[in-house]
Amino acid sequence: MIQEGSYVLLFHTSRKKWLTRVNREKKVHTHIGVIDVSSIIGYEYGTIVKTSEGKIIHLVEPTIHDFIMKSERGTQIIYPKDLGFIVARTGLKSGSKVLEIGTGSGGLTTFLASIVKTNGHIYTYDINPNFIEIAKRNLEKAAMTPYVTMHLHDPRQGVHVQDADVAIVDLGDPWTMVSHVYQALKPSGAFVAICPTMNQLEKSAIELKQNSFIDVDCVELLIRNIEAREGMSRPSMRMVGHTTYLIFARKTSYGM
Amino acid sequence: MIQEGSYVLLFHTSRKKWLTRVNREKKVHTHIGVIDVSSIIGYEYGTIVKTSEGKIIHLVEPTIHDFIMKSERGTQIIYPKDLGFIVARTGLKSGSKVLEIGTGSGGLTTFLASIVKTNGHIYTYDINPNFIEIAKRNLEKAAMTPYVTMHLHDPRQGVHVQDADVAIVDLGDPWTMVSHVYQALKPSGAFVAICPTMNQLEKSAIELKQNSFIDVDCVELLIRNIEAREGMSRPSMRMVGHTTYLIFARKTSYGM
Amino acid sequence: MIQEGSYVLLFHTSRKKWLTRVNREKKVHTHIGVIDVSSIIGYEYGTIVKTSEGKIIHLVEPTIHDFIMKSERGTQIIYPKDLGFIVARTGLKSGSKVLEIGTGSGGLTTFLASIVKTNGHIYTYDINPNFIEIAKRNLEKAAMTPYVTMHLHDPRQGVHVQDADVAIVDLGDPWTMVSHVYQALKPSGAFVAICPTMNQLEKSAIELKQNSFIDVDCVELLIRNIEAREGMSRPSMRMVGHTTYLIFARKTSYGM
Amino acid sequence: MIQEGSYVLLFHTSRKKWLTRVNREKKVHTHIGVIDVSSIIGYEYGTIVKTSEGKIIHLVEPTIHDFIMKSERGTQIIYPKDLGFIVARTGLKSGSKVLEIGTGSGGLTTFLASIVKTNGHIYTYDINPNFIEIAKRNLEKAAMTPYVTMHLHDPRQGVHVQDADVAIVDLGDPWTMVSHVYQALKPSGAFVAICPTMNQLEKSAIELKQNSFIDVDCVELLIRNIEAREGMSRPSMRMVGHTTYLIFARKTSYGM
Repeated sequence: MIQEGSYVLLFHTSRKKWLTRVNREKKVHTHIGVIDVSSIIGYEYGTIVKTSEGKIIHLVEPTIHDFIMKSERGTQIIYPKDLGFIVARTGLKSGSKVLEIGTGSGGLTTFLASIVKTNGHIYTYDINPNFIEIAKRNLEKAAMTPYVTMHLHDPRQGVHVQDADVAIVDLGDPWTMVSHVYQALKPSGAFVAICPTMNQLEKSAIELKQNSFIDVDCVELLIRNIEAREGMSRPSMRMVGHTTYLIFARKTSYGM
Repeated sequence: MIQEGSYVLLFHTSRKKWLTRVNREKKVHTHIGVIDVSSIIGYEYGTIVKTSEGKIIHLVEPTIHDFIMKSERGTQIIYPKDLGFIVARTGLKSGSKVLEIGTGSGGLTTFLASIVKTNGHIYTYDINPNFIEIAKRNLEKAAMTPYVTMHLHDPRQGVHVQDADVAIVDLGDPWTMVSHVYQALKPSGAFVAICPTMNQLEKSAIELKQNSFIDVDCVELLIRNIEAREGMSRPSMRMVGHTTYLIFARKTSYGM
Repeated sequence: MIQEGSYVLLFHTSRKKWLTRVNREKKVHTHIGVIDVSSIIGYEYGTIVKTSEGKIIHLVEPTIHDFIMKSERGTQIIYPKDLGFIVARTGLKSGSKVLEIGTGSGGLTTFLASIVKTNGHIYTYDINPNFIEIAKRNLEKAAMTPYVTMHLHDPRQGVHVQDADVAIVDLGDPWTMVSHVYQALKPSGAFVAICPTMNQLEKSAIELKQNSFIDVDCVELLIRNIEAREGMSRPSMRMVGHTTYLIFARKTSYGM
Repeated sequence: MIQEGSYVLLFHTSRKKWLTRVNREKKVHTHIGVIDVSSIIGYEYGTIVKTSEGKIIHLVEPTIHDFIMKSERGTQIIYPKDLGFIVARTGLKSGSKVLEIGTGSGGLTTFLASIVKTNGHIYTYDINPNFIEIAKRNLEKAAMTPYVTMHLHDPRQGVHVQDADVAIVDLGDPWTMVSHVYQALKPSGAFVAICPTMNQLEKSAIELKQNSFIDVDCVELLIRNIEAREGMSRPSMRMVGHTTYLIFARKTSYGM
């Protein structure tokens, strides 16, 4: 049941939806009319209400996906296609211990926390206090604060994590973090880097191969929407052409 | 430390690797020589050993990804790009309650279990006893059995699940399951279908829109490898052109 | 040398460029200033002039590509990636005899004419007089009129062409034209259809296979821009996700 | 009518087809039986014959596309998707004067000649006499010899071409040819380079921008086959992930 303090996704269409925290005083103003938030207290998720202009609003219970897509942003977010592949490719799971270098707006942090909780943990580093603040607010909204330790600290000075299952680097120069990550990972632990440019990918791959990482795997993912309609289905005319390349590797022993 | 009964990924290169269960009697025969499994007992993961022909083998601790990619197969598996996106798009997380219709070889089941454990659960249905047996063996290897309930039962007769967070349909005719899934989902719960053909996608999208589902979203993901080499990085010449389309939707109230 | 009546591409950047016909009276008004067209008479192509606001304009000699991209449009145009592939896949060449069903705005007509001239010819059909008028103006600008015969005629009533090397169908229901095209093609002649939806592609492929066409080949082309910059090259974030599917086939004997 | 000396594509399926020159003595041996070439003399293209094992063979008249795809190869060929886009993007047409640097096996040469003939011409350079020989044989088969002048000459020493409409560079270091190509092009003429790696693309783009070329445009094309079948159409599982990047630019005046 929706209560004071609950989060609700006010859903009109896939492109017109608003994430809000329920508060007796709040009115959400949209171009399809006003939604009086106090009036939805006591309703179940899944109920339909109307705006002041009579437009339909579905009261949807927000998921981690909704929290991330509607999060406060200070940096480029990582897209769901890339978030999901990081988990599936590394085998990151409930209970995993994860090192994240480059907290940014905390979108990846939120997603990883939702998966590793309640027995796992995320240790995340950023040197920018603004990002740490934004990430903190985003984690709170999604109720992921207990599973994350945030460090306002330059990771190039070293990180205080041992035996991580997975380490994810989201910095402009990921290749500089290879030896620090090596120290922080458990044997067979996974390295991941977010590399928007080919240059970052190339430098990181070379550095990894020279520093006792194996199974170095560079990929990019493309996602395309399909417009499914009776007798005339076709891909959408617009798509995102590029978000980032991703690089994966695993720690092995020195001296290979 | 590697012990009798441990699983080890014997890694030579990204294309030459073998997943094995440690057993004093076992010898793994490969075209790069024999690996005497008894000799690795007592080693740490990350250690390097050699085959009878002197080729290097890294003793890698297998992840959920390795178990899935090296699983016994009775059906087409779902690829990591698709597995990961299902999680990221639906917000499926540690603690989720999931209905899976079409167990197949249990690859998706294994992956989902690794994420929802230990407080969540997977309820999976298949009418084919062979698939149920294969899936059972695959789940055991990956130690995911406690988090899964398997039903050898025709899901078209109805499913005994209530308040699921997410339901995933991997059958040839996913549109036939829409009303059963509606009953099984909690309000705002997510529907997912694996649709290899455009026809399956089109029929399922139409059925969902006519049956109180909103946010119907059809996508396909393409993954491309990049060969990162100094001064000559480029995408790989070969790639997988298609695995499946995916459809996502959310339950809302009747009578919308 | 640029003269009265010449066409010039006034090029500021790849996104800011204007195709104009030189006329002593004309002034081109843009948001980067006014270009006095009379002042460029007598210049060579490749010269640089300035707008009234001092912005640089390159006087570029327009190509067939420029004429098509800047053409007057009454319908969705066919993109260069698809135009080019039609030629490369069918082996259409200088001297070819081509049947086009569905003239539209004449972009494809213009392109094909530029290749088959001066010994080849395009015979094109459309039932819409507005399209025929638009196409006529577009062909005139690109100086391709002598190589094209236009028919304001319903192609479903039959077409008066024999021994065509290639026939290209750009209608909503291309499968209905299969038998007419069969009659119009020479032995081994090529059939091409522009099919924006999967349904059109599927129906056309089935019809072709049942009507003495072989080598039925269905494809789609994706084009992605790359932003090449020193040390930070990467694909563009935006791309076109879909224009059309294409289907190719060749005529063989009856009774196969 | 098929005669001694005619070329015929012996077509069984899209994957099983053989290009042959008709010769009374020749027998083509395949795993679906022997084809007695003397027996097809006098037949029309489009006729169906049988192998010694009773398998159907369509006698198809080969196109330029068939000659290129079945050509003798000494180097990586350029794919039809890339061949076609070069023509469509530059506006290359019947009558164009073209400079080609890097003849290779002559596939691109053959294609370009088929379009520029009979009033246009291709001037092509290669330093490797083996490639020149292979290209010569391939051009002869396709009857394109009259429209091509071949130079066994190092293009880095300069090229003797003036006022070319289009210049295409297919060498390992295309950026080294930028100033030579500038001299050879007419004002507004088009530069094209075939760049398999990102590094080649980046270096060439930088060099072009610094040397009086405008409209520098870097792209890659992806082609995917679709399997169109009644009620179950879908993209093919395999596709080519990468052939080459392409770069396009236009000559403008010095001192921009």
